[in-house]
Amino acid sequence: MISVDEARARILADFRPTPAEIVALAEAWNRVTAAPVVARLTQPPADVSAMDGYALRATDGTLHATLRVIGAAPAGHPFDGSIGPGQAVRLFTGSVVPAGADAILLQEDATRDGDTVRINEAVTAGRHIRRAGQDFARGDTVVPAGRRITARDVGLAAAANHPWLSVHRRPRIAILATGDEIAMPGEPIPPGGIVSSNSHALAALVRAGGGVPTVLPIAADTSEAVAAVADAVAGSDLLVTTGGASVGDHDLVISGLQSRGMVVDFWQIAMRPGKPLVFGRLAPQDGGVPVLGLPGNPVSAMVCSILFLLPALARLNGLPAGPPPTVTALLGQPVGANDHRADHLRATATTDAAGRLVVTPFPVQDSAMLRRLALADALILRPPHAPALPEGAEVSVVLLDSLGL
Amino acid sequence: MISVDEARARILADFRPTPAEIVALAEAWNRVTAAPVVARLTQPPADVSAMDGYALRATDGTLHATLRVIGAAPAGHPFDGSIGPGQAVRLFTGSVVPAGADAILLQEDATRDGDTVRINEAVTAGRHIRRAGQDFARGDTVVPAGRRITARDVGLAAAANHPWLSVHRRPRIAILATGDEIAMPGEPIPPGGIVSSNSHALAALVRAGGGVPTVLPIAADTSEAVAAVADAVAGSDLLVTTGGASVGDHDLVISGLQSRGMVVDFWQIAMRPGKPLVFGRLAPQDGGVPVLGLPGNPVSAMVCSILFLLPALARLNGLPAGPPPTVTALLGQPVGANDHRADHLRATATTDAAGRLVVTPFPVQDSAMLRRLALADALILRPPHAPALPEGAEVSVVLLDSLGL
Repeated sequence: MISVDEARARILADFRPTPAEIVALAEAWNRVTAAPVVARLTQPPADVSAMDGYALRATDGTLHATLRVIGAAPAGHPFDGSIGPGQAVRLFTGSVVPAGADAILLQEDATRDGDTVRINEAVTAGRHIRRAGQDFARGDTVVPAGRRITARDVGLAAAANHPWLSVHRRPRIAILATGDEIAMPGEPIPPGGIVSSNSHALAALVRAGGGVPTVLPIAADTSEAVAAVADAVAGSDLLVTTGGASVGDHDLVISGLQSRGMVVDFWQIAMRPGKPLVFGRLAPQDGGVPVLGLPGNPVSAMVCSILFLLPALARLNGLPAGPPPTVTALLGQPVGANDHRADHLRATATTDAAGRLVVTPFPVQDSAMLRRLALADALILRPPHAPALPEGAEVSVVLLDSLGL
Repeated sequence: MISVDEARARILADFRPTPAEIVALAEAWNRVTAAPVVARLTQPPADVSAMDGYALRATDGTLHATLRVIGAAPAGHPFDGSIGPGQAVRLFTGSVVPAGADAILLQEDATRDGDTVRINEAVTAGRHIRRAGQDFARGDTVVPAGRRITARDVGLAAAANHPWLSVHRRPRIAILATGDEIAMPGEPIPPGGIVSSNSHALAALVRAGGGVPTVLPIAADTSEAVAAVADAVAGSDLLVTTGGASVGDHDLVISGLQSRGMVVDFWQIAMRPGKPLVFGRLAPQDGGVPVLGLPGNPVSAMVCSILFLLPALARLNGLPAGPPPTVTALLGQPVGANDHRADHLRATATTDAAGRLVVTPFPVQDSAMLRRLALADALILRPPHAPALPEGAEVSVVLLDSLGL
């Protein structure tokens, strides 16, 4: 058996970030930059006023002085001339500070009377002036490469004058469910069969991870079906399979693809839920697409996806890839000692009176219980051989909602 | 001046959830259920095996007994007959337990020899059998109304046999930037002007909040432009405006819409950054669309959006609406006493050796510094009149990345 970390490292070693594509700034939110966004201009472009008021020479800005207002400079309409002794220009937030001025008289500290303005509060040179380039200067990197673009980054890239951004192409993930017993929702269900849930949950997980899912038709157990799968995934960045429990440890699609030249490893991973995992690569003539074979049961498939598929998506997206993010929480009830398999307890999360996160595992951790999984807020991580812990002990947890899962 | 909470409550009082629409299950991830998802079948549909092995009568399952294997029942191919004394049927994970059987012999505890199987470990009645309906029964609500649909919920809705889901229509949010000084990215910039950033950042924020943004052309300062805005937002759930600083406290679009019958409140909110906020409703003949007028400076616009626009989006989406979610963090450096305005300090977040979240405010909190806002990980909430706090004190923070912002 290998550890979860080793399995993840082996999987990640097989992925590289997708190539770049150009998208409109308006479509760039939540994508990942493939190149740094470099400012094309300086912001502010000139010294500007941070407040509504008057521009003047600081030496003129003494209490009770009266200045002559020689013009106004609304934002976007800079004053053309220069401010001389005893002169002032009306300004607004964002207005360029006219030549000659080095101080701002606030509107609320001024009494305007026709062409003159009286100073009710002495000014300080430089105060309320935003200097040219205070936010950023032309040539500055405002958003680095390899960053998931936030709403703020979109605003910043706009301010830096970028109508287009270079981002990593969304990873294309083909998803294949197998098994004679499964039907698509709303379609006739075979005797003793169930409705396919894994492929839809995985497709949503792929979206949450920034990928584009392609849900393939359920494969029949024939060699023609296997060949069709290899052809259907050309151009994909990854094929994810689930299920095939009807024939034991691995499914006919995997064995079929092996007979077509796929190189594949079967791993026993020291984890629960989930243990057997398949990882390989289609034959070169089939595009060498990587293949991740997940367990068929829904809870195992989802937990394995969090541990292995989301990191692979992160790597493909050009993001840092590693274990899922965790936070520390307190146990709401004791847990027993763990065996040699890393455990991932489905748990609810609440906040105690002191505002601390408290997680309570479900009493039954059956890996077929999808509804319970959906009700869970968190996975409690129990490392191999972790000791029994009392109520109130600190544990690491993965928050499911925060991952969009 | 009114408090942040009062302003939010007044705004929320003006919004109702959008009506329902039907979307394909494959498109339902991250949407919000408008009706409960009720199971259309029972899962598992019958008692099924949780493991690979053999079905038998528990009374036959004694150590070293040998049974006759009378058939096999792969998942999806239930065994037709009934199991009698001394008989067994080969099963796999998910196979229906045949009539007559009440125990499972695990594959690893069995020795198969032609038509017979020898028991190497005595069985326990009922063990390794998943009972019909253990996950859910027909008629159970598996996903409640008003829930943001997770990847797990998608899987659960699929398993409950729903190819379509009823969700709240995405809120349609019109966004209007005003100001003679602003240009769209990549277009000619007027003298002393800057590139529009607010409308793009807000459009991304609307997407993050589950809405559909419509970015309107920058409005010119004419009555025709005002009329065009009123016509352009018909059918929207909300019009958000920003800017207009060039003419002082409120912009020509607002005053223009007022002259066209818009009822509007101007609020001074006890907060920083941001203080003046406009909230109103277009005239009935213009559809009565609500209007939220945000400050023009980018940091104020974003902070006000987090405090007011995201909750409005949540309400429109049919989700619980209230203050932004906060977590507790430790101060990385002391902060001074606060005045009467709720402050929202832009801060970086790190994790200390003990795994606790530590937030450190930027030394300069200028509300025009978009780049610094983009670099921030968190907003530290400082209530009105909050006392000075030492390094290490606990504070409430809004984590920006977790909001997709």
